[in-house]
Amino acid sequence: MRVPSLPFDPIAEARRQWGAHGWEHAAPAMAVVTSIMRAQQILLSRADSALRPLDLTFARYEVLMLLSFSRRRELPLGKIGRRLQVNPASVTNAVGRLEQQGLVERVPNPADGRGTLARLTGEGARVAAEATSVMNEDFFADLGMDGAEMEHLFELLRGLRQAAGDFG
Amino acid sequence: MRVPSLPFDPIAEARRQWGAHGWEHAAPAMAVVTSIMRAQQILLSRADSALRPLDLTFARYEVLMLLSFSRRRELPLGKIGRRLQVNPASVTNAVGRLEQQGLVERVPNPADGRGTLARLTGEGARVAAEATSVMNEDFFADLGMDGAEMEHLFELLRGLRQAAGDFG
Repeated sequence: MRVPSLPFDPIAEARRQWGAHGWEHAAPAMAVVTSIMRAQQILLSRADSALRPLDLTFARYEVLMLLSFSRRRELPLGKIGRRLQVNPASVTNAVGRLEQQGLVERVPNPADGRGTLARLTGEGARVAAEATSVMNEDFFADLGMDGAEMEHLFELLRGLRQAAGDFG
Repeated sequence: MRVPSLPFDPIAEARRQWGAHGWEHAAPAMAVVTSIMRAQQILLSRADSALRPLDLTFARYEVLMLLSFSRRRELPLGKIGRRLQVNPASVTNAVGRLEQQGLVERVPNPADGRGTLARLTGEGARVAAEATSVMNEDFFADLGMDGAEMEHLFELLRGLRQAAGDFG
């Protein structure tokens, strides 16, 4: 979201306060956590803005892309959740909305009597391609970091994700 | 949130797909954005878990800490939003809930006839201190990164925050 600019970095100020209160040992982690929270807000807001003309959110865009990358353009809902690392309720919401929009359809999973597949429709494939074009040009083209910085940031966060048990 | 572990890094796989589709120029930024989104989920889930026994969320904890750092332990709602870089509705929600919990009170702002201050109560100060003790010991004490890594991560995200216009 757009918030007014401050004359100083509020997270650096919080970090200074942490040190001044005798919590210097915890100050760098507090600053890192707060920075990641804020960076996520900035990026999610930008991604959602870029996708709004297509009536998509970043969460729904991720589902469309995962389906368009899969061999048969269909996946069980449980697998979508595991791959996007979101909880089942989030997948159900996203797929339900995409279904209303005519971009995916739900079909019974022939390999699992109780299970459901989400399948990309032709319109879903078209919208996914258009959205990727917008995202690649308007958003991913310039994060304000050079290639080495992005590489380093990816590696640091990969360590955090791996330590959290996201992948083995 | 807890999600099942995968045998491979799903973001590295998405990045590989991006390159395979001819979008290599946008692949590093896509991977960085997706990594920040996931890191935020991991950290927010952990912070909220650490704070749950105190009936707090990270958003409400941030309001308590900002008030406890301010000279008179009170701040206008608008200033809380600017300092925490969240929108007015989020501040209203957080302060409303903290008021119900008896941790802050709302008082008219003597410097602004239409404005409202949030003021930390004695109980609010006590809970803020207890919560910080929990956060510093259970959460900020170990993010799974060493000091140099946290420093580097903070600097990279500071660049992103500054480029987004958060501070001048």
